[in-house]
Amino acid sequence: MEKAREAVAVGKISGAVGAFAHLDPQVEERVCAKLGLKAAPVSTQIVQRDSYAEYLCTLAVVASSLEKFALQVRHWQRTEVREAQEKFRKGQKGSSAMPHKRNPILSERICGMARVVRANSLVGLENVALWHERDISHSSAERVVLPDSSIAVDYMLHKMASLIDGLVVYPERMLENLNATRGLIFSGQLLLALTQSGVAREEAYEWVQRNAMKTWDEGGDFHSLVSADEGGDFHSLVSADKEIRAHLSEEQIARVFSLDTYLRNVGAVFARVFG
Amino acid sequence: MEKAREAVAVGKISGAVGAFAHLDPQVEERVCAKLGLKAAPVSTQIVQRDSYAEYLCTLAVVASSLEKFALQVRHWQRTEVREAQEKFRKGQKGSSAMPHKRNPILSERICGMARVVRANSLVGLENVALWHERDISHSSAERVVLPDSSIAVDYMLHKMASLIDGLVVYPERMLENLNATRGLIFSGQLLLALTQSGVAREEAYEWVQRNAMKTWDEGGDFHSLVSADEGGDFHSLVSADKEIRAHLSEEQIARVFSLDTYLRNVGAVFARVFG
Amino acid sequence: MEKAREAVAVGKISGAVGAFAHLDPQVEERVCAKLGLKAAPVSTQIVQRDSYAEYLCTLAVVASSLEKFALQVRHWQRTEVREAQEKFRKGQKGSSAMPHKRNPILSERICGMARVVRANSLVGLENVALWHERDISHSSAERVVLPDSSIAVDYMLHKMASLIDGLVVYPERMLENLNATRGLIFSGQLLLALTQSGVAREEAYEWVQRNAMKTWDEGGDFHSLVSADEGGDFHSLVSADKEIRAHLSEEQIARVFSLDTYLRNVGAVFARVFG
Amino acid sequence: MEKAREAVAVGKISGAVGAFAHLDPQVEERVCAKLGLKAAPVSTQIVQRDSYAEYLCTLAVVASSLEKFALQVRHWQRTEVREAQEKFRKGQKGSSAMPHKRNPILSERICGMARVVRANSLVGLENVALWHERDISHSSAERVVLPDSSIAVDYMLHKMASLIDGLVVYPERMLENLNATRGLIFSGQLLLALTQSGVAREEAYEWVQRNAMKTWDEGGDFHSLVSADEGGDFHSLVSADKEIRAHLSEEQIARVFSLDTYLRNVGAVFARVFG
Repeated sequence: MEKAREAVAVGKISGAVGAFAHLDPQVEERVCAKLGLKAAPVSTQIVQRDSYAEYLCTLAVVASSLEKFALQVRHWQRTEVREAQEKFRKGQKGSSAMPHKRNPILSERICGMARVVRANSLVGLENVALWHERDISHSSAERVVLPDSSIAVDYMLHKMASLIDGLVVYPERMLENLNATRGLIFSGQLLLALTQSGVAREEAYEWVQRNAMKTWDEGGDFHSLVSADEGGDFHSLVSADKEIRAHLSEEQIARVFSLDTYLRNVGAVFARVFG
Repeated sequence: MEKAREAVAVGKISGAVGAFAHLDPQVEERVCAKLGLKAAPVSTQIVQRDSYAEYLCTLAVVASSLEKFALQVRHWQRTEVREAQEKFRKGQKGSSAMPHKRNPILSERICGMARVVRANSLVGLENVALWHERDISHSSAERVVLPDSSIAVDYMLHKMASLIDGLVVYPERMLENLNATRGLIFSGQLLLALTQSGVAREEAYEWVQRNAMKTWDEGGDFHSLVSADEGGDFHSLVSADKEIRAHLSEEQIARVFSLDTYLRNVGAVFARVFG
Repeated sequence: MEKAREAVAVGKISGAVGAFAHLDPQVEERVCAKLGLKAAPVSTQIVQRDSYAEYLCTLAVVASSLEKFALQVRHWQRTEVREAQEKFRKGQKGSSAMPHKRNPILSERICGMARVVRANSLVGLENVALWHERDISHSSAERVVLPDSSIAVDYMLHKMASLIDGLVVYPERMLENLNATRGLIFSGQLLLALTQSGVAREEAYEWVQRNAMKTWDEGGDFHSLVSADEGGDFHSLVSADKEIRAHLSEEQIARVFSLDTYLRNVGAVFARVFG
Repeated sequence: MEKAREAVAVGKISGAVGAFAHLDPQVEERVCAKLGLKAAPVSTQIVQRDSYAEYLCTLAVVASSLEKFALQVRHWQRTEVREAQEKFRKGQKGSSAMPHKRNPILSERICGMARVVRANSLVGLENVALWHERDISHSSAERVVLPDSSIAVDYMLHKMASLIDGLVVYPERMLENLNATRGLIFSGQLLLALTQSGVAREEAYEWVQRNAMKTWDEGGDFHSLVSADEGGDFHSLVSADKEIRAHLSEEQIARVFSLDTYLRNVGAVFARVFG
């Protein structure tokens, strides 16, 4: 956004064909500087439109990233997932037909508006190739897309900020959903542990997969089996697999199935971003 | 597609500026007829490009509809939902890192390709406004987008057909997911039954919502409660609500919570489409 | 437009998931018929968005065709061409800097707006693939693009109609511009006449081109030579070319350079379109 | 392009969900540095797609600017304008039907390809909002648009460079076309001179316009009047206008109609750009 803002902060007073037939180029420089603008090095009757295209494309990238976050919230808020949801004010009505339903209305709105902002970037791009580097056909189009995209992204940013502020998070549901695969999420770690213990990858893959498939296929009603200790889960099946056990001890397998092992580097990622 | 195909099945032999300076218009009509084409009523050096734009837009609508189906499969195949999934051949590898993972690879591929077909329609639209109704700038662009979009949609249709042929459906999971809301899906029907029994809609909405919210909020670990009869589900709460019971008998409430009632007209929908 | 209008003239009262849980499908049919709509054969909470995409794409094709006409007017109105121009009301100001300048302002405006309508069709296409065939993300986007595109095309059609009504045409300038090539526009006809008289096309092309190039290269200041009879024009050069004259008589060459020959079939084109 | 190139020069080895479950984050940093890449601060299974969208949008802006130049060449090469044209190799065939015709084929090709590159940027933008910040639907789309847009812009840049290298320029035609308005191009300067001499702008505008209109309207066959001294041109009409002459001397008017005055600052513009 900063780069794009700089790109459009450009002015010109170079006359009808950019020849400075009526005044000195230094006037342009001084006036632009007073307005906090750079003087366009070359211009025609107008400032060239590539920088406006860059601005509209940047808004489109921002809008698409906001859509990415909104899409995530919509997934979290699915009834079957329900790991997080938009704040629902006390007394707020849900769906008109289905009173219990809490819809991710802000997230859906943001997704829809991202489409508009995306499409408007096309208008900015089509506006670049003007006749004689200065016909005026871009004018009618820019009157629509410049304010529409600017206002829409501003609105989306505000809505997204308040959405995140008010986001209701269900950590227990997250853990429950992780456990719903009965240990399968650790299959990659198991594969790695086997290859590190000297098993060829092809072979290790086959051993892991046969146990994974068994766990998966027996999981038709897997939610009732969540955190069950009575067998049928991936950890138990792996522990009972003789070929695997020939290479990994019970302790090593336990480390594979540990969230602590899995998440040991997450702090480093946060440190990278937030310092 | 049929309309769009007809729109582009047009030919011309009207000369370099469409004046038939070199031959009789009847020659054009006869030759076009032999080729199964209509003669363009007016043409320049070229057939006007609006019909090709229509063709590319039609492909984009078809691709977007295929994406809609593919998106549905991707939802079904989510680990937390798992109501249906793309066929997984015996011996097929899943994710390289996670051997158990079965990804909806065809559906994701179709979604991605829909974006390309959609964008190509823009090229078709930009090709319409040619200089003098006949410059040749569309030529380089059409060499890319006409074959690319045609081939992509053909490929997507074939993949989608085989995807649906091989789709693995889990009806028990579907029922389980429906039940996971512990009866909340019938809230709309309950609201209707109350208003039909004479309760004002505003009031009915409030009664339904208070029970719905209670059911929902207690459903933090709702999967363990699926098909539970011991209370806490929406049906029980509603049956115990005195204001509701003052207007609806136990039998009437049972009808509200019946899938048979809910689905009684589904056959009529199928009859509409498949005759 | 008629097809697209029909495509969106569709209604539904099939309930929140399209199952007609609350009323008979016949009610939907009767109500839709009263409103002049067709009942959607299948629907979810909403009518599927492919028909709206078709509508927006159709508007985009219409807008692009209007841009094609507008582009033509802009070419005609170029100072160097000046074959036709938008009406300029008495007392109307021209360019603020250059009082004599008459700009094709309507045509440029139409070109700019076509870009907006074109881009909006993309929004319609992105709206098709909704979650579960019925999320509500299309709503915020359609509130922008459906009215904007509909109103813009209506405006463009009105402006284009009045532009054509008031178009100022300069037939003498048209003839003058045709003559400015000093006969080169008949080169295609000459090529044809030579091949019909038995010359191989390759050879004929070479003969025609050498005279055409000579005419062209000497035309650096060709406007001062317009309708000159003193030689240097294509007709004279061709008449003096011995190889050509060995196959075509003076009379045959005169027929090649006759507008009457060239335009003899134009009436048939008008008859095709206007009956 | 430099910014966009930097934006996509990013790598990751953070594992299947970006948690570095299998190796230390420092490994990623070292490997990326060896490859000349920055390590993505946060990643999932993939690097986020916003930077690729930025890259594709940047290519679209570049392609649109190339189209702007190409459009200019096409205008110059119009038969009625003919101020410059693409190089035409000796022996090169022109139009198949019209041997003399030299078409701006490179410029038209570049215009067409710009449409493809523009549309592809949309695909990049649609690829940003992936499910869970990492579905794989972008893959099929990127295999088309990343190489296509990169190769197309590379091709366009090469073609444009050789087009400009070989551009045939006709300065006399340029001057002739300027003179074709019989002095009207100086109307803006005249307006300025009048206001500087104390005439109110409204009044000055009227005086200038009445002479400009007269010049324009009598210019129906203006090419035959080019550089005529016998009156009817704007300079003569202005010199004979008593109200104007009451404020401007003959010498002052001559300065208004001088190209030297008009172009006096052009050198400063070149200095700004080329130093």
